[in-house]
Amino acid sequence: MTQRKHVAVLLADGFEEAEAVVFIDLMRRMKIDVDVLSCMKTTELKSYFKTKITAEYTLDAKFSQSYDAVMMPGGPEGTANLTANPQVVAFLKRHIDEKKWVCPLCSSGAKVLAANNLLRNAKYTSGGGFDKNFQDGVCLDEKVVVDQNFISGKGFGTVFEFSFEVAKHLLADSVKDVVWQAEHIYFDHWGEHDYS
Amino acid sequence: MTQRKHVAVLLADGFEEAEAVVFIDLMRRMKIDVDVLSCMKTTELKSYFKTKITAEYTLDAKFSQSYDAVMMPGGPEGTANLTANPQVVAFLKRHIDEKKWVCPLCSSGAKVLAANNLLRNAKYTSGGGFDKNFQDGVCLDEKVVVDQNFISGKGFGTVFEFSFEVAKHLLADSVKDVVWQAEHIYFDHWGEHDYS
Repeated sequence: MTQRKHVAVLLADGFEEAEAVVFIDLMRRMKIDVDVLSCMKTTELKSYFKTKITAEYTLDAKFSQSYDAVMMPGGPEGTANLTANPQVVAFLKRHIDEKKWVCPLCSSGAKVLAANNLLRNAKYTSGGGFDKNFQDGVCLDEKVVVDQNFISGKGFGTVFEFSFEVAKHLLADSVKDVVWQAEHIYFDHWGEHDYS
Repeated sequence: MTQRKHVAVLLADGFEEAEAVVFIDLMRRMKIDVDVLSCMKTTELKSYFKTKITAEYTLDAKFSQSYDAVMMPGGPEGTANLTANPQVVAFLKRHIDEKKWVCPLCSSGAKVLAANNLLRNAKYTSGGGFDKNFQDGVCLDEKVVVDQNFISGKGFGTVFEFSFEVAKHLLADSVKDVVWQAEHIYFDHWGEHDYS
């Protein structure tokens, strides 16, 4: 039996809750394990639009673990908190070195990865125009971009496309299960990423 | 100044968390007030895919209040818990009588509204094929259906279309703000509901 894939979601106060929750939900629907990690001092979190969400562990408690993929949502304060946290940067750097998937959604592509020179010239996409503030990486105006070991999504409105793209890479041997799941939830706007 | 619109979201253990959180997030982005109500004994909730979410109030605490719209997400156990709760049914019935918007997503259309004969022959949509178990209402195979004072969405994959349709009706005088918000989050697959 194939070992189940394991993904970490990095959350900090001010995170865009729907971007995170859709991603977590879709991963778990596809039997990918998810650890929801708070990058703050406790698992209690404040979210962008005030939905009360609690993480499962702190990043501190799981720092030494390596995951198959690491995802970060957007949210103005959330990405500001992530990028200012040396533990987050070290955790991401180790996963990039280990060639794990690193998956920023919305402004986290620019504000967390490019801001810390973690993209190493990779192509990516990011929301809000923050890419202009940084030299690292090549930002493309696309819904989802896959390059090197980065899978990036532009924003909240592309969260389904982004999540299914991550799942497709984690479950490369069973893409048909990803397509089944999309059909099961009546998602049908793959655009250029048509796996049917 | 126009009075802000006020929406209630009804959650019960087993609710589809991403359907609820995307809806709440989009309403708040559009400056529509949202009360997240637990239909269980406490505000602590169990969700379908185990994201830890807490409601703001119990339905019991807000039962006498009337909202401009009432939304319910899907989730197999969530809708089973909603439909078996006489307080939920009474709350919905009062809002229907008062001609407020009642907005079921996914299986809640069939399992909560049709199961309790609340649709009064209205057209609606619902996920999972549960509509076949009930006589009430006319179920259509569409992403979003608006009829009488019901706005229904088929499932998780149509949550953006559903939420924007609800916002469009609540903010009928400022549909351009709804369109702006959709563009702001890079959502572009309106399908037949093109408001641009």
